[in-house]
Amino acid sequence: MFSKKIIDSLSSGSMIRAMFEQGNILKAKYGADNVYDFALGNPDPEPDPEIIEDMRALAGEPNIHKYMSNAGFADVRDTVAAYMKAQSGKGFTAEDITMVVGAAAGLSVTFHSLLDPGDEVITLAPYFMEYNSYVGNQGGVVVPVKTLPGTFRPDVNAIRAAIGPRTKAIILNSPNNPSGAVYPEEDLIDLVRALEDAEAETGNTVYVVSDEPYAKIVYDGVKVPSVARIFKNSITVNSFSKSLALPGERIGFVAVSPDMPDKDLLNAAIVYSNRTLGFVNAPSLMQKVVARHLDRAVGLEAYRERRDMLYEILVDAGYNCLKPQGAFYLFPESPIPDDKEFARIALNHRTIVVAGSGFSYPGYFRLSYCVSKDTIKGSREAFRAIMDECSELKRKA
Amino acid sequence: MFSKKIIDSLSSGSMIRAMFEQGNILKAKYGADNVYDFALGNPDPEPDPEIIEDMRALAGEPNIHKYMSNAGFADVRDTVAAYMKAQSGKGFTAEDITMVVGAAAGLSVTFHSLLDPGDEVITLAPYFMEYNSYVGNQGGVVVPVKTLPGTFRPDVNAIRAAIGPRTKAIILNSPNNPSGAVYPEEDLIDLVRALEDAEAETGNTVYVVSDEPYAKIVYDGVKVPSVARIFKNSITVNSFSKSLALPGERIGFVAVSPDMPDKDLLNAAIVYSNRTLGFVNAPSLMQKVVARHLDRAVGLEAYRERRDMLYEILVDAGYNCLKPQGAFYLFPESPIPDDKEFARIALNHRTIVVAGSGFSYPGYFRLSYCVSKDTIKGSREAFRAIMDECSELKRKA
Repeated sequence: MFSKKIIDSLSSGSMIRAMFEQGNILKAKYGADNVYDFALGNPDPEPDPEIIEDMRALAGEPNIHKYMSNAGFADVRDTVAAYMKAQSGKGFTAEDITMVVGAAAGLSVTFHSLLDPGDEVITLAPYFMEYNSYVGNQGGVVVPVKTLPGTFRPDVNAIRAAIGPRTKAIILNSPNNPSGAVYPEEDLIDLVRALEDAEAETGNTVYVVSDEPYAKIVYDGVKVPSVARIFKNSITVNSFSKSLALPGERIGFVAVSPDMPDKDLLNAAIVYSNRTLGFVNAPSLMQKVVARHLDRAVGLEAYRERRDMLYEILVDAGYNCLKPQGAFYLFPESPIPDDKEFARIALNHRTIVVAGSGFSYPGYFRLSYCVSKDTIKGSREAFRAIMDECSELKRKA
Repeated sequence: MFSKKIIDSLSSGSMIRAMFEQGNILKAKYGADNVYDFALGNPDPEPDPEIIEDMRALAGEPNIHKYMSNAGFADVRDTVAAYMKAQSGKGFTAEDITMVVGAAAGLSVTFHSLLDPGDEVITLAPYFMEYNSYVGNQGGVVVPVKTLPGTFRPDVNAIRAAIGPRTKAIILNSPNNPSGAVYPEEDLIDLVRALEDAEAETGNTVYVVSDEPYAKIVYDGVKVPSVARIFKNSITVNSFSKSLALPGERIGFVAVSPDMPDKDLLNAAIVYSNRTLGFVNAPSLMQKVVARHLDRAVGLEAYRERRDMLYEILVDAGYNCLKPQGAFYLFPESPIPDDKEFARIALNHRTIVVAGSGFSYPGYFRLSYCVSKDTIKGSREAFRAIMDECSELKRKA
């Protein structure tokens, strides 16, 4: 009676959201202080006071809550274009920028504009599984290619081998959710060559869709290479959920490379998709607010400190783990091969993790360290006990 | 190279948005004061000071900009449920409410949840043509049924005749964009009987999707009958764009009738669709703001005054026009049969109207009176001159 397609999908659900709900149930039962919930990438710092002050100041300005062009306010798009130009050295103008309802919306309008049914999109596993919806809703098919175990760097040979006549795009997400890996520039330059080689063979362009919500969340002085600088056919999707700690506000932008042939047509398609998919325009007050804070990153030092704390606890308890240079996740190896079983064992110790299978990368698990230092400190014994239980299981096996 | 489907659609565009752009070109050329732009339903009052004050007060509250459940904040959903209960007399609870990114998003998630490819949705013409996208994006097919000429009341016999084995839903939009008509209760009760009759024949439920952004924009003491009270299988989609003058902020809700069989499944599908279509959640600060102002209607008296002024000017110039009791549009008959030609003639008199063809109702044109009184006063001579030119054309023909 309702949509068969959707009702069938309901049961699959999101593993992240399912663990989030599990965490809430445990907290209701044992008290929030006694649950170590590492499930959700929900930035816990409040936005900086300057951001709040700008919300208050702008809220009463004339015409700030009205419709504008579906692409966004002209002055906001100018400012974002200047920012993209400074980042990439490319000649972005306001025409290349569409303000969107967060990165999820940005990816949806991008794939709606790019894909015909049956087109393929390569993702680099581990990856944020919602990509399956943003691609699948347009009739596209996701083709996951595994990154290299341990480092989670792109496996460029495997990517090249996966490109076929229906490949329309590849999604890059660096700093990566869930691994925290920052893809080094040399890998991206290898990827440019692989794409050029494939394009020469198939005659089709492979568009590079760069999902960059974590671009500002980096540590140890690492610099994230600009995808818009390196790839001619790039579409940058950005969000202020993480950098400004505004995930509930749903605000971001899409930037089409000024070097792309026919970029005006793609920009028109993106604005059209923004309207007809029901987004209409990005929330208006927040457009004006974020335009004043494009360079800001909220809570960076606190994240770094927590990364170091949680990493030390894990290594101390015997887990294998990359110490990542970006985002706010750790992605350790599961001490038992079955990562879903591992997540269930962790639950018994009131510890909420998301199994790597939830990111198309079994054998690992994700921890979000957007949590209090007390939660991290409190989890030390739990991670030890979980490791002990896993060791016991392995002995019995 | 980009999506063929979307590139082909680009040329069709939106007639409303096209006229909006035309208006901007004319204003740049002749000055804003010399153009009579009735194209866009962009509420011109600023939000009431109490709304702005609440934005400022809430902006600094803890956790207000963070992720919440994809359905929205629990306290906001409670408040909206109580509001829906007061309106309809039905036992709405928070579980029946999903906060959404405006009514366009609400319709998109609703049809994503209801439709399988090939399912049909009846619309009552004249209607807001974006429905074609919200239905078509899910593979659904819109089946327009004309309302009665002059009154724009539903033609219940024609609706009954249009219901077939693939009919999944009917969209009601009262007060109506573009006609301003408020559908009387007796018509809705006739429609209940027609749907029951059809359901008995086909064995399928026909869901009533009520698009209600103008529910609070009514005049002359008219009361808009509650669709949620009258129809058991109703889904109410509401927005605060018009009632609170916040169209840029994209905030609204979807309410599923508590009387609907399997309503929990539909609510789950709506929340799932909200997430997977890329909306994720309704903008968080605005959720909290609108929950404090559910009963408010901004600028009502000013709209009524302008309706009366513009109506008088049109009738004085010889146009046939219903004096509508809701929304902020007039929908007069075109003095020449070709309404697109009429819109072109009006443009020559620096007057921007939208042809009725843009609402699947040729032979009429829409005027939005969300404009200054000066614009309305200034248009008197233009509407006379346009009528004169049309009369001249008819004499020559």
